[in-house]
Amino acid sequence: MDLFSDLSDVIAAIAPPDAAAMAAARQRQDRMTKPRGSLGMLEDVSVRLAGLAGDCPPPLPVPARVAVFAADHGVHAQGVSPWPQEVTAQMVANFLAGGAVVNAFAAQVGAEVTVVDVGVAAEIEPSAGLLRRKIAPGTADFTQGPAMTRDQAIASLRVGVEVARELAAAGARCLVTGDMGIANTTASAALICAFTGADPVAATGRGTGIDAATYARKLDVVCRGLARHRPDPADPVGVIAAFGGFEHGALAGYILGGAALRVPVILDGVIAAAAALAAAALAPDAVGACFAGHRGAEPGHAVTLDHLGLRPLVDLGLRLGEGTGALLAVPLVASAARALRDVATFDSAGVADKL
Amino acid sequence: MDLFSDLSDVIAAIAPPDAAAMAAARQRQDRMTKPRGSLGMLEDVSVRLAGLAGDCPPPLPVPARVAVFAADHGVHAQGVSPWPQEVTAQMVANFLAGGAVVNAFAAQVGAEVTVVDVGVAAEIEPSAGLLRRKIAPGTADFTQGPAMTRDQAIASLRVGVEVARELAAAGARCLVTGDMGIANTTASAALICAFTGADPVAATGRGTGIDAATYARKLDVVCRGLARHRPDPADPVGVIAAFGGFEHGALAGYILGGAALRVPVILDGVIAAAAALAAAALAPDAVGACFAGHRGAEPGHAVTLDHLGLRPLVDLGLRLGEGTGALLAVPLVASAARALRDVATFDSAGVADKL
Repeated sequence: MDLFSDLSDVIAAIAPPDAAAMAAARQRQDRMTKPRGSLGMLEDVSVRLAGLAGDCPPPLPVPARVAVFAADHGVHAQGVSPWPQEVTAQMVANFLAGGAVVNAFAAQVGAEVTVVDVGVAAEIEPSAGLLRRKIAPGTADFTQGPAMTRDQAIASLRVGVEVARELAAAGARCLVTGDMGIANTTASAALICAFTGADPVAATGRGTGIDAATYARKLDVVCRGLARHRPDPADPVGVIAAFGGFEHGALAGYILGGAALRVPVILDGVIAAAAALAAAALAPDAVGACFAGHRGAEPGHAVTLDHLGLRPLVDLGLRLGEGTGALLAVPLVASAARALRDVATFDSAGVADKL
Repeated sequence: MDLFSDLSDVIAAIAPPDAAAMAAARQRQDRMTKPRGSLGMLEDVSVRLAGLAGDCPPPLPVPARVAVFAADHGVHAQGVSPWPQEVTAQMVANFLAGGAVVNAFAAQVGAEVTVVDVGVAAEIEPSAGLLRRKIAPGTADFTQGPAMTRDQAIASLRVGVEVARELAAAGARCLVTGDMGIANTTASAALICAFTGADPVAATGRGTGIDAATYARKLDVVCRGLARHRPDPADPVGVIAAFGGFEHGALAGYILGGAALRVPVILDGVIAAAAALAAAALAPDAVGACFAGHRGAEPGHAVTLDHLGLRPLVDLGLRLGEGTGALLAVPLVASAARALRDVATFDSAGVADKL
């Protein structure tokens, strides 16, 4: 377990939110020139940002950067997706060429896109905006054995921590999660069941769009995987090794890295949420750094957000991944921070309070 | 009715959405490198933007500008709000000083704020960012008689059209609605009942936060107003005159102006929605220019959006007004347009389609 020692330091650095900063934020919200509570969920967001930063007002979470962790899945061989596995590598090329939705949405919010090859089943040539951190060319099929070794699970966590550190060192004040990996909603469903105890039917969805027969196979695959591995949620590394996604491990590490740095992490869809369960199992206070960017269409996403106690900011029926839902939430989180920092109080503005 | 002649030209200029541009947008969405339908409601937004512009892809709706129409209400005398009427003028000063939430949210999305005094019951000194278009220092109490004359209602519509034209001429490619006026949710409830036939209980809410006794008074005021004026929804100017808000009339004109210019208008909360009913009664195709920024807490808002066939983009429990909810939606609308414009197709990117 010495491979884990540096991760232990990261985990040890993750602390609970700062109660004094949160109280100061709440008090300031109640004196700002607006009816009390009238910013709804954004008041909670501002309070959580203050708690994470340990300061009121907290720094603005800009600029944001999005890391898209890409990997392939051995379980694709079970016929759980209508998309060929090659689409993972093809979409990585599309991200690097700037042609995907994640690029368009990132441009809208001024976020740079970093693509991390953590396990694509094809050689990805060096390119600007690409971090080559491949652990293996795809995982193994989890219906036949563990998706990866424990050492690989730890290595994937470490990649995520390092990416969080690199992006923060490059100036990111908000870390957005992104992911790409054909069949990764199947791995996510198994992870969600393992960590939350959810029924597989409640956690398994139709992904980016599958027919009923494919859905039946997908559900069967999740059930067989759970029966085979009998995962222990108290052993998060073991759960990741059983079912993950190298991108799941890396996303969990990215969340841990953000939490240790006290930088907000905006989660995208069900893949990031499943990874957040792993992060929370390793360091429960890591959830304090997490903001749920949106509510995806995959049913396991809502199950997971409830389990984590996170409420999604955007709910527009997106089911794309890549980081797209989380990027849409960046201006909402930034607006919450900006209001707390910039809005005058009743006293300072000479505005009469409610009678 | 010659006062109305220029407005008739505006209304005549409002055309239905362009079917060919909408079809092109739908076709392009289906060839973009993403699963079909995976951008959820944002696909519909992009199609509507194309229809409004008559072009695919439509221009990006940036920069946005927000006009905050401010006015006072005679019905305040009935005790429908816990806030003193002076707060309208005080908040106008706060907007002009940059200290309100609308300023913070506008800064986040790069939108300039224009405040329009269309009827504040106090003298507002000239200031940068202020348009002085006062029709009267507040409306009359609609429980005692019409809130305004028909000529004043027409004048308020005209102010809104002119502001839309001025902002568009200054470069705005998206018009955001804002409003300020203590007691204006009461006027909005009456307008909503008049235009939709909604039951006053369904259309009347607790505004920015009122106790049960105040709510009872507010509901009684709405009922008495409706009983007194017996509004005819086929006479929109008469309905505005009976219950409006100079800001309601101006917002309705602003929507008509945006629609005539084929510039998208993002509606804020219940006040803008009530005004949109008036605009739609004057020119049904004006709804094609409208995007519902958010779902406010006021119950009449949901009733009105349903009536207009608009689905809100943001749903975070806001109940502030000023334009805040609509400003949060600006990046969402812009992201929808940007995706349609910038995302590669399966063919152009060499990405395999679903099997």
